[in-house]
Amino acid sequence: MTLPGSDNLPPVRHHPTAAQLDAADPLAKFRNRFVLADPDLVYLDGNSLGRLPEATVTRSASVVGEEWGDRLIRSWNEGWWEAPVRIGDALAPLLGAEPGEVVVADSTSVNLFKLAVAALQARPGRSRILTDDLNFPSDNYVLAVVADLVGEGRRLEVVPSADGVHGPIDAILDRLDDDVALVTLSHVAFKSGYLYDMATVTAAAHRVGAMVLWDLSHSAGAVPIDLGGAGVDLAVGCTYKYLNGGPGAPAFLYVRGDLQSQLTNPIAGWWSHHRPFAFDAGFAPDPGIRRFLSGTAPMVSMALIEPGIAMLAEATVAAVRTKSLAQTDYLVSRWASDLAPLGFWLASPAAAEQRGSHVSLGHRQALGIDLALINDHGVLPDFRPPDNLRLGIAPLYTRFADIDAAVDAMVGIVTTGRHGAHRDARPTVT
Amino acid sequence: MTLPGSDNLPPVRHHPTAAQLDAADPLAKFRNRFVLADPDLVYLDGNSLGRLPEATVTRSASVVGEEWGDRLIRSWNEGWWEAPVRIGDALAPLLGAEPGEVVVADSTSVNLFKLAVAALQARPGRSRILTDDLNFPSDNYVLAVVADLVGEGRRLEVVPSADGVHGPIDAILDRLDDDVALVTLSHVAFKSGYLYDMATVTAAAHRVGAMVLWDLSHSAGAVPIDLGGAGVDLAVGCTYKYLNGGPGAPAFLYVRGDLQSQLTNPIAGWWSHHRPFAFDAGFAPDPGIRRFLSGTAPMVSMALIEPGIAMLAEATVAAVRTKSLAQTDYLVSRWASDLAPLGFWLASPAAAEQRGSHVSLGHRQALGIDLALINDHGVLPDFRPPDNLRLGIAPLYTRFADIDAAVDAMVGIVTTGRHGAHRDARPTVT
Repeated sequence: MTLPGSDNLPPVRHHPTAAQLDAADPLAKFRNRFVLADPDLVYLDGNSLGRLPEATVTRSASVVGEEWGDRLIRSWNEGWWEAPVRIGDALAPLLGAEPGEVVVADSTSVNLFKLAVAALQARPGRSRILTDDLNFPSDNYVLAVVADLVGEGRRLEVVPSADGVHGPIDAILDRLDDDVALVTLSHVAFKSGYLYDMATVTAAAHRVGAMVLWDLSHSAGAVPIDLGGAGVDLAVGCTYKYLNGGPGAPAFLYVRGDLQSQLTNPIAGWWSHHRPFAFDAGFAPDPGIRRFLSGTAPMVSMALIEPGIAMLAEATVAAVRTKSLAQTDYLVSRWASDLAPLGFWLASPAAAEQRGSHVSLGHRQALGIDLALINDHGVLPDFRPPDNLRLGIAPLYTRFADIDAAVDAMVGIVTTGRHGAHRDARPTVT
Repeated sequence: MTLPGSDNLPPVRHHPTAAQLDAADPLAKFRNRFVLADPDLVYLDGNSLGRLPEATVTRSASVVGEEWGDRLIRSWNEGWWEAPVRIGDALAPLLGAEPGEVVVADSTSVNLFKLAVAALQARPGRSRILTDDLNFPSDNYVLAVVADLVGEGRRLEVVPSADGVHGPIDAILDRLDDDVALVTLSHVAFKSGYLYDMATVTAAAHRVGAMVLWDLSHSAGAVPIDLGGAGVDLAVGCTYKYLNGGPGAPAFLYVRGDLQSQLTNPIAGWWSHHRPFAFDAGFAPDPGIRRFLSGTAPMVSMALIEPGIAMLAEATVAAVRTKSLAQTDYLVSRWASDLAPLGFWLASPAAAEQRGSHVSLGHRQALGIDLALINDHGVLPDFRPPDNLRLGIAPLYTRFADIDAAVDAMVGIVTTGRHGAHRDARPTVT
């Protein structure tokens, strides 16, 4: 890739080099199991929309052409009806959950709504929901409405992060008391990538009798998760980031086995019923995880989740995490040597163990840099206002060379002032 | 198709014959625009899962391979973000709605939940939701929970049908008073196919100040609908029946334009926000129909809705209704002459103007007949317990010859007693 104007500024080369690291990467073989339509594209947005697995192309042809086109309604008996639970069971080991504790359904927002209402109703007399301001904003929109709707003085309490990067874990623990009904946080923060200590927060919340609900959207498939080991009550998350399930693919929800019969789904639909095909006038919930389903699932989008989960199971989350840490370390190291002198700051934790699988870099002209990366360099990061460039590492297909390409391009853009050309541009939707 | 044992019982032939009616059918050309993997299959379940349009096969390859695989996150800027509104606008003319009044989102149950909560909150001090027992059972499950959740004594009142076939329209009108917050009904009943007079019910509810919410799942794309002309407040419906959107494809919701700014979506997510890409901590709803969206939509399933809607728009709902009435009349006529003597009763309205696009026939051994049709005759109807065979007419691909084939098969099964072989079988999922 030519970086006009930057050829007089060779970036510092690290040892081992990206080429050496890629050559030694035990996960390198997985990259070719994704569709790489533009082999020159440097895709650093797998934390927003994961790439398309080759196996998913085949699956999409069969679910549309054969299952819908040929078998028609008979497919409900031939795999569709069980798909939410079957795919949930496939996902469970990646989350440290047992079979029957995870189900695929709806969107993350709808699942969060359902489980948050159920949690408040299971903790009558407690008025507060605790979260932080690193949580995805719409999680907090949902939670605020849930508090109003369940009523009786319930309210959402948003604990601020001191620096916008690290989760306010001590402040959250300090605010725990027997008036807290629910603690709910993003396991990995969408912007800074801060990774919460799930076991510590969960244990502390349980000591005061509160329930705990984690949003795993930015951690599922990227960092080790042990819902069972931590004793987590509830979780939700999306499947279209590191799980590579496809744009807007149905989300998942987790309810610990022993809690399922105690909780009530506020959107109890046909798919939640114990005997749906009796078409009974009265509602009787399924005894297990299906009670948290609502209406009919979008089966084509749902079917496309399976190949990505199978690939992660094969690679193992442990190996993914090892490579992710090596790659975010490599990126942080290149930031320190090449980008910090150019006005970039690290907007993610410096400590590797507090980091998910993306790294945010701040810059006063982040939007211009983002647009120059996309338009002039074939590098796709994403921009989060007002000044944040988010670089996603998806170890199944991200190469160390991609990190070099992105950093080299940022060096070239800033040293030649080309980000100024985009200063007035509007952000793209990513 | 061989009907063993029935060759001594030639069924009564009608004039004009099915062959003559098919030859004169102006919509006949549409059948070949669907995938007909098994040309001998008699598919009478388009009221449950519509067939796969050929154009959808092409669309599925492009949304998966090109939009996801190649363009990746850039596709959000290249059509995906606008898809819920764009497809809603395409659907609007089939519903008698204006652009900006319909949006595609979530499932029918989730949409019903959202709009029912919004309606109750817009009618404070009124305690009753009126519906009937012909409504889809899970609509009534959702409504009962909504009444509890919004609280303050609100309750669901289910008006019984006198005969299980016709909607209790007079009883509903009698119960209207200024304590009714919401009247919500299926426009076409899922079992009997009874078609409500939307304008009459809506006008009567409005006279007492109640809101009206119609479930259009069994009428959209099959019968003329004039939401605007009838002054309807709210509607929901699915896209996988007569709209041929695919298994579990996202549902739609309608909110009359002048009401949108007055109503609050109880599951306000990222997609409901006025400026979603600002990632503001505070929620500010979109001023228009997008405020009723919640989380990210399953984009592959959503994209597959478009070709079916385009085909219906081309055919026109008026022409579809004309053929549907001719076909349900033909079926009712064959029932009277050939099936009534064999113990079948008509479980749908005899009056054509009260009928949607499916016809239910009752029989004491309906389940055995259903299974014999599926297993021995390649005829797919569906069974609704305890004694109901539902025969769906989808005029874009159902032929008069299909109706003959199904009726002839039922005659053969019952006259030879083969339904007894299936007497203890369990119903299939349809």
